Amino acid sequence: MLRIGMLTSGGDCQALNAAMRGVVKCIYNNAKDDVEFYGFEDGYKGLIYGKFRMLTGADFTGILTRGGTILGTSRVPFKTIREPDENGLDKVAAMKQNYYKLQLDCLVMLGGNGSTKTANLLSEEGLNVITLPKTIDNDLYGTDMTFGFQSAVEIATTAFDQIHTTASSHGRVFIVEIMGHKVGFLPLNAGMAGGADIILIPEIPYDINNVIDKIEERDARGSRFTIICVAEGAISKDDAKLSKKDYAKKLENYTFPSVSYEIADQIQKKTGREVRVTVPGHVQRGGQPCPYDRVFASRLGAEAGKMILKGEFGYMVSYKNREMTKVPLKDVAGKLKTVDPKSDIIKEAKMLGISFGD
Amino acid sequence: MLRIGMLTSGGDCQALNAAMRGVVKCIYNNAKDDVEFYGFEDGYKGLIYGKFRMLTGADFTGILTRGGTILGTSRVPFKTIREPDENGLDKVAAMKQNYYKLQLDCLVMLGGNGSTKTANLLSEEGLNVITLPKTIDNDLYGTDMTFGFQSAVEIATTAFDQIHTTASSHGRVFIVEIMGHKVGFLPLNAGMAGGADIILIPEIPYDINNVIDKIEERDARGSRFTIICVAEGAISKDDAKLSKKDYAKKLENYTFPSVSYEIADQIQKKTGREVRVTVPGHVQRGGQPCPYDRVFASRLGAEAGKMILKGEFGYMVSYKNREMTKVPLKDVAGKLKTVDPKSDIIKEAKMLGISFGD
Amino acid sequence: MLRIGMLTSGGDCQALNAAMRGVVKCIYNNAKDDVEFYGFEDGYKGLIYGKFRMLTGADFTGILTRGGTILGTSRVPFKTIREPDENGLDKVAAMKQNYYKLQLDCLVMLGGNGSTKTANLLSEEGLNVITLPKTIDNDLYGTDMTFGFQSAVEIATTAFDQIHTTASSHGRVFIVEIMGHKVGFLPLNAGMAGGADIILIPEIPYDINNVIDKIEERDARGSRFTIICVAEGAISKDDAKLSKKDYAKKLENYTFPSVSYEIADQIQKKTGREVRVTVPGHVQRGGQPCPYDRVFASRLGAEAGKMILKGEFGYMVSYKNREMTKVPLKDVAGKLKTVDPKSDIIKEAKMLGISFGD
Amino acid sequence: MLRIGMLTSGGDCQALNAAMRGVVKCIYNNAKDDVEFYGFEDGYKGLIYGKFRMLTGADFTGILTRGGTILGTSRVPFKTIREPDENGLDKVAAMKQNYYKLQLDCLVMLGGNGSTKTANLLSEEGLNVITLPKTIDNDLYGTDMTFGFQSAVEIATTAFDQIHTTASSHGRVFIVEIMGHKVGFLPLNAGMAGGADIILIPEIPYDINNVIDKIEERDARGSRFTIICVAEGAISKDDAKLSKKDYAKKLENYTFPSVSYEIADQIQKKTGREVRVTVPGHVQRGGQPCPYDRVFASRLGAEAGKMILKGEFGYMVSYKNREMTKVPLKDVAGKLKTVDPKSDIIKEAKMLGISFGD
Repeated sequence: MLRIGMLTSGGDCQALNAAMRGVVKCIYNNAKDDVEFYGFEDGYKGLIYGKFRMLTGADFTGILTRGGTILGTSRVPFKTIREPDENGLDKVAAMKQNYYKLQLDCLVMLGGNGSTKTANLLSEEGLNVITLPKTIDNDLYGTDMTFGFQSAVEIATTAFDQIHTTASSHGRVFIVEIMGHKVGFLPLNAGMAGGADIILIPEIPYDINNVIDKIEERDARGSRFTIICVAEGAISKDDAKLSKKDYAKKLENYTFPSVSYEIADQIQKKTGREVRVTVPGHVQRGGQPCPYDRVFASRLGAEAGKMILKGEFGYMVSYKNREMTKVPLKDVAGKLKTVDPKSDIIKEAKMLGISFGD
Repeated sequence: MLRIGMLTSGGDCQALNAAMRGVVKCIYNNAKDDVEFYGFEDGYKGLIYGKFRMLTGADFTGILTRGGTILGTSRVPFKTIREPDENGLDKVAAMKQNYYKLQLDCLVMLGGNGSTKTANLLSEEGLNVITLPKTIDNDLYGTDMTFGFQSAVEIATTAFDQIHTTASSHGRVFIVEIMGHKVGFLPLNAGMAGGADIILIPEIPYDINNVIDKIEERDARGSRFTIICVAEGAISKDDAKLSKKDYAKKLENYTFPSVSYEIADQIQKKTGREVRVTVPGHVQRGGQPCPYDRVFASRLGAEAGKMILKGEFGYMVSYKNREMTKVPLKDVAGKLKTVDPKSDIIKEAKMLGISFGD
Repeated sequence: MLRIGMLTSGGDCQALNAAMRGVVKCIYNNAKDDVEFYGFEDGYKGLIYGKFRMLTGADFTGILTRGGTILGTSRVPFKTIREPDENGLDKVAAMKQNYYKLQLDCLVMLGGNGSTKTANLLSEEGLNVITLPKTIDNDLYGTDMTFGFQSAVEIATTAFDQIHTTASSHGRVFIVEIMGHKVGFLPLNAGMAGGADIILIPEIPYDINNVIDKIEERDARGSRFTIICVAEGAISKDDAKLSKKDYAKKLENYTFPSVSYEIADQIQKKTGREVRVTVPGHVQRGGQPCPYDRVFASRLGAEAGKMILKGEFGYMVSYKNREMTKVPLKDVAGKLKTVDPKSDIIKEAKMLGISFGD
Repeated sequence: MLRIGMLTSGGDCQALNAAMRGVVKCIYNNAKDDVEFYGFEDGYKGLIYGKFRMLTGADFTGILTRGGTILGTSRVPFKTIREPDENGLDKVAAMKQNYYKLQLDCLVMLGGNGSTKTANLLSEEGLNVITLPKTIDNDLYGTDMTFGFQSAVEIATTAFDQIHTTASSHGRVFIVEIMGHKVGFLPLNAGMAGGADIILIPEIPYDINNVIDKIEERDARGSRFTIICVAEGAISKDDAKLSKKDYAKKLENYTFPSVSYEIADQIQKKTGREVRVTVPGHVQRGGQPCPYDRVFASRLGAEAGKMILKGEFGYMVSYKNREMTKVPLKDVAGKLKTVDPKSDIIKEAKMLGISFGD
């Protein structure tokens, strides 16, 4: 008998279900023993508090195309994972206890950066853990790609397409704010796919004067409108120079809903042009996974299944250099993959005339 | 020789190009005389300031599916149309002058409520005017349907679909704010299509306690999440009772970005539940027209063409009681079509368990 | 206790689940008694052979957006409904028996033309029957609209959009064959929305010479390509003149996969132009319902629920003259709604320059 | 002065315009000299017969998202490129002559396998040629990815999604035939993304008995339906064993419209089950490019621009091992990239339970 626990953690995204279906199909089709799947509800919370349900084949029928996660998810911050909960419960001990009580052979965790740190901790505590790289931000270290990313790019790009017609009809400057607090892969790709003229990402601090120059250069060439893609975490050169303390102080007194509104305000004041801000927000993590993510998540799931059957634990399944592989959790946990300002794609984008405000 | 002027006015929407293509194709295919089309740029501004270009068949090739408007558009408020502009120019006189200078046989105006009022004024001033009912709000009096509406419903519904997966994965209350300052057709239809549990529209003032009751009723039945569709112009029963003056005073001191955030705040405070707000915003007016709008706008265009050929002016082309017809501009201008709280669709929505907070 | 049977019959289409969800939600929210829902599997087959399952609220969760039918469906021809099955079973008697055995208060049937005839028969046999107008063809008599239609129009239109880029890139004549054996609403609307230059529907027999004239007229004007929308049931003027017997004889010796290939062959032979045929086929009935259909089907479901609660049986729920209403099954059964060649939309299409080959 | 010729060749696909826009934007933004772009119409035909037009910035505005090619395209077979045309014209000489007459500095060719062979020939004849890897089949040797591929996967996957609801509603076997005469990347990926149970590709000959076994295995487990993805060029083990001559003879007498119909026929005869075939066809190459392709094609275009500015010719721009690079045309021309039956993705697909009929 093989007993496999499964949970999805952190912000939801597309193809979580596709990935879990991949694991389950692979195991059902290839395991020699009987298998039982236990799904923990709402991420690590389910593991901590023993909220789980047994999953059958029927749970995985028809979910290849379904967004969200059939298990539910939640954010359980790694920072406080070693602290007792409000009732004094030792969370790590509780997770281990539930793992052993169910006589699990392993735990499959689908999550992003923070969640992977917790997975590594559990692995270090002796549990058999495999993780799958889930995030719309594609910021997981150790893998070239994460599932959810390409689907989010598609949704964000649609926002640009829809804004494009309005921007050109009204001759306006339009800012579209795209998810990405620390890492700019999503805004970079959606901005390029959506024909943005300016793209501001956390990795390349901007100077508002460069942004305005680009707008005016377009004006001068007769372009009626300018579209700006702003990452949630876009940061000005001045702010980037601030000490952590001073920046925190700035944010305390921040009166704009987000950086996009600050940029809009600056452009309006300095150029007199009408600027509109659109914030697609949570829609970027929702809806059906795109075909790319369905295939990719299914493949990751199959690889996780293979690892379970071989008894290889303590790894994140990964896609590197065009191969499905695995990386030790300890080599991944706590590290962030970011956009390299000197990478090919940034150079190409600049040659295409896209301004990064730098 | 037939000389036809054309302009698009107010907020842009889907199928403006499809409608203009309809007019032009109808005229080209059926006029006995030679025809010249003059497109005024950026709405009434182009007519006021004599900014126009001659349009040829090539301008209308491939635009059936293209969002926005090839002519550009702008909002020129009716309120101040009788007032001189900042340079002392008499706007109405200028429009008439440009119309006569170009020896136009008629002016085709595609616009919503305010724009139709201006069209009526020009008609009363003696110009030959035909208007086409354009708006994502479907709030034009005298027609059962406007183009743009169904496309906007589709985009807004997609937002609900995408939020749905996240709401159910995280077990949250989600508010999606849909366009509609005074009229709720768009949020009503998008909310129903998107499976919203609560829909708040301007025509039906809400009591926040009823909203909360619905959330808690869902909780009690084991639903993990609640989705609320809030019209931009949703109004509480208390606010609805205020005098105009008092309500204006309230808005002056309003600290929320929009009513959705106020509702979210109230729910959070009264229930302790996590509430997220998403505001799709301008994307609702953009992108390609849906097939329904393409057919509908093309048909309206053909009817306008027919009227031009017959010399029937001073009308808005309209769809009433399943027939293409026309209504005198004076019967339409300045009137609003709103959701009747006692209409079939509201009754049906309530029977389906949707709460309107009333 | 209220016991309600439900079945979906005939070809599947979008929004079947949305309509059933509407019925169930309406009943659950408004019935004073306890309710039990019985779902018959695979259409009338389930009623004949007693294959059914009890349905709970969970069955209807999340199905508003799901295509197909959770009950399964099949075609049980009306023609042979009075004949015993291959084992000698009296089908009508069996249906009645299963209805009474389950002590049903009524049967809700979602289906098209043939299925409605069977429903009427059951109604005449004394069962309490309500039907909902389901078909992508919109050919049901007694209602202005059916659910599935608008979703199918969207899918078919997408095919035109995709073919458009290839047709214009290669300068070809392209035929897209759209569903519609006897009735042309779907090809008419998809063709108009897709920018087809020629539309051939069953209600308007075509002369191939007129089709070719239109192609050559476009050539002469410099158009690189022509797109033809052909209904499955398009018929030439010559064939339309044949007696039923002679036409059947022709079909016996027909060597083309469908009429589109015959037309392509004729155009190629007479003009030397390269003609390509695309047959989207079954995809037109599949996938998620569009927002229009979700709202419409939900409303129909709510009305059916209302009728059940009032005890009004023997009707099809219908949408006529902008109102939700009901029509007696006997007034609907066996009648077809077709495109009127003299209707507004056909006249408008012709004014737009679309050829119907007549 | 820099003079650049450009042409698109072979079957059209998505993102051709995006790629050309990339080249042009890169050159306009980075060239020190004045630049002139000449677009040859309808592929090599335009170069042979001197049909071209000068292109300006306006030609490239708004085409990032537009499918097809603004230049038109055609298939000019490599096989006969050395033969004179029907009027005795030496095609290769004519191309060279037109190239030199226009004083071109280089020719940018966007095309697939055959077109790249011709490009290599022109390069060997002394012209400065750069090619961009265009094809929905992703079968170009020397690059890990081609533009058009991912867009085609999306469209093909949508067909599976739409068929899925009908297959499950009716409990049928459904075959969806996906483009790919010699190479199976497209059917492989679309089939996996679409949840196909069986995928038949040219690289893995099938045994119809294995196909039937899989259907019956699904039956036995209670699955109501089976979905089969068949590549246009799927081939049975028996046929794969035939000599070229014998296989050609078989095709001569072939009575099925395509291999899918033969497979359907075999399944029906051997199992008595109802099988339906859907052939999406040309829609797979049409419509808007997906975001992935827009970014990828733009990047390829930028790299081509960079190469032009550096004077590096005789290469195909390529994406290999996660880097933008270039490969000599002579190393690419005439070679095909195919699906390796022993690759990771095939192994994973098999572990997921997908049958390849082998």
